Amino acid sequence: MPAKIPADSVGLVTPQTVFFSAPLKLECGRELPGYSLTYETYGTLNAQRSNAILLCHALSGDHHAAGYHTMDDRKPGWWEHLLGPGKAMNTNKFFFICANFIGSCKGSTGPASINPETGTPWGLDFPMVTVRDWVRTQADLADHLGIAQWAAVVGGSLGGMQVMQWTMDYPERLRHAVVIAAASKLTAQNIAFNEVCRQAIMTDPDFHGGRYYAHNTKPRRGLSLARMIGHITYLSDNAMRTKFGRDTRGGKAFSFGFDVDFEVESYLRYQGSSFVERFDANSYLYITKALDYFDPANAFGGNLAEAFASTQAAFLVISFSSDWRFSPERSREIVQALYTCNRDVSYAEIEAEHGHDSFLMPIPQYVAVLSAYLGRVAEEVGV
Amino acid sequence: MPAKIPADSVGLVTPQTVFFSAPLKLECGRELPGYSLTYETYGTLNAQRSNAILLCHALSGDHHAAGYHTMDDRKPGWWEHLLGPGKAMNTNKFFFICANFIGSCKGSTGPASINPETGTPWGLDFPMVTVRDWVRTQADLADHLGIAQWAAVVGGSLGGMQVMQWTMDYPERLRHAVVIAAASKLTAQNIAFNEVCRQAIMTDPDFHGGRYYAHNTKPRRGLSLARMIGHITYLSDNAMRTKFGRDTRGGKAFSFGFDVDFEVESYLRYQGSSFVERFDANSYLYITKALDYFDPANAFGGNLAEAFASTQAAFLVISFSSDWRFSPERSREIVQALYTCNRDVSYAEIEAEHGHDSFLMPIPQYVAVLSAYLGRVAEEVGV
Repeated sequence: MPAKIPADSVGLVTPQTVFFSAPLKLECGRELPGYSLTYETYGTLNAQRSNAILLCHALSGDHHAAGYHTMDDRKPGWWEHLLGPGKAMNTNKFFFICANFIGSCKGSTGPASINPETGTPWGLDFPMVTVRDWVRTQADLADHLGIAQWAAVVGGSLGGMQVMQWTMDYPERLRHAVVIAAASKLTAQNIAFNEVCRQAIMTDPDFHGGRYYAHNTKPRRGLSLARMIGHITYLSDNAMRTKFGRDTRGGKAFSFGFDVDFEVESYLRYQGSSFVERFDANSYLYITKALDYFDPANAFGGNLAEAFASTQAAFLVISFSSDWRFSPERSREIVQALYTCNRDVSYAEIEAEHGHDSFLMPIPQYVAVLSAYLGRVAEEVGV
Repeated sequence: MPAKIPADSVGLVTPQTVFFSAPLKLECGRELPGYSLTYETYGTLNAQRSNAILLCHALSGDHHAAGYHTMDDRKPGWWEHLLGPGKAMNTNKFFFICANFIGSCKGSTGPASINPETGTPWGLDFPMVTVRDWVRTQADLADHLGIAQWAAVVGGSLGGMQVMQWTMDYPERLRHAVVIAAASKLTAQNIAFNEVCRQAIMTDPDFHGGRYYAHNTKPRRGLSLARMIGHITYLSDNAMRTKFGRDTRGGKAFSFGFDVDFEVESYLRYQGSSFVERFDANSYLYITKALDYFDPANAFGGNLAEAFASTQAAFLVISFSSDWRFSPERSREIVQALYTCNRDVSYAEIEAEHGHDSFLMPIPQYVAVLSAYLGRVAEEVGV
């Protein structure tokens, strides 16, 4: 981190963990015997408890959305550019909460946690969790914190799916829904990429049927491949061209061998191997499955407008022009469905070169849209 | 195969193999001490030897472009739809030759062949081969068959790259160049996908540094993953949607486990595992590297028009609207470069839903364009 914490950062933050001891009935039909949620908060809850905003994270994200854990941290939270005093998500106005979802591996209960019945890590005995289950646990957290209604629920990518689920499952508990770079369901191509990632992990001999914890190893090769595949889909073709082109590493001539020739190869190998150090392979499996299963229109014969019919929130939907993982077309489907059922909806399609990753970046037009929208929310709730 | 060979098929064909005993100097600087080419021919070479057309195959293709090897064959050659008596590539008019390229595994010399110096398979000791090397070996084959000039050289995808290289390296030896669904170089994204495929193979514990032949095994997991990734990039998002949508296998409910839920998962797993039975993993490595390295403009400071300046052939360039592996934009770059240096060039952008795989399919507009063009070539060479 910088020698001095920047003035527009939330600064040092400390994650908290809450344990819910009541059994949690899951969408898959199984029960989780209690669960922990690890979360962070930024800003101050006002006396009316009207200024709370829930942030929902994406596949490889976590509860650490902004600030630093220690003065030695190399990097701040994942939404540092957008979240802080005076920023688009303004901690001078709002009280933000971000919780790691269950099934993940950053503090909340997941497949690497201890199964109380066996005293060993759950592994693949962990029950399947879904976007709907995550929203349910976030509602438990809201109850725990005494927040009856969110001023807004905000999320990008898989986070945006949680936002949509919130509007359907707890219509009266959020005033605004900000759905960024998301989709109402995965395409066959999205599912195909997820499946290849899962196969990479599950066919790694070090996977041991998900019991690799007991073997003091992990499926490094498989998880690394999964991350490499993911990275290709997060960046646009153009962004890769701009970033790497066909540059060879260090400007060297072709090796005519199988070592790294091109910069992009070097980048991917690094992304793959560093991810293995910070993410649990089983969590990757569970979370990609939750992505595949998400399809709220399915219960309405595929009619997304009907799925949204019971919602009460006002919506802001944002997409990015070069995002081919969840393209603007996917966001427009959401917007169209909301129009059809007469919801209050604003839509911004941001010109951006960075592909799906754009939702993490301080792109001026994106910052302006988010800032203006949340500014109006602040007025509405009187902060 | 059908009980009776269809009248418009070339019927039963027998591959031939020719050995070239002279050492082959390769672009990488190393020498191959002689090499074999396995090839097939269809139709009859005329007395003037003016009606020969060379077909260049793609990554996982081979010399078996049309017809059947035995009456028990389940499938004909890969261009059966387009190649045969009276078809777009008309064997009543032309004499077609298709040769498996070196580095592959279908009969021509490659990493699974025996290294005469050691008496064991080459593995990764096989020298790197390039598109330029392939064209050189095809010129050797033309000499062997007494063909001074091709009426045309035709290829799709990686085959189209060979066609372009032919026009540059042997300008006087072909009258027409038909470049289908190709690109003058890979993008960073293309290279990235290839690199993930290579990493999948090379990190498979059964890879044994490429010496898996000696261990009586093969990197099945890695090669299968590579093929799954490849398949996603061969099909368009729309084609996948049309073919699979979000259909579950057998219309079943979600499993809430890690078995196959969706049809697309089942399809990919099948594609992966069946490929392992018919393709050598080391060949996959070598061929993807040849793809990555191909960039004829590089020797001209990136100016593709200059690379084409010395060519003499007339060009037909064909692309497919939904191809995102080698998009129409890539083909238009080729066409633009050819215009710039005043080559005779025709361009057709075919509306097609099937992505990169379109070049293998009998899409009516595609068949019509190819048929009309080669019809004029037939008149030109007097057949």
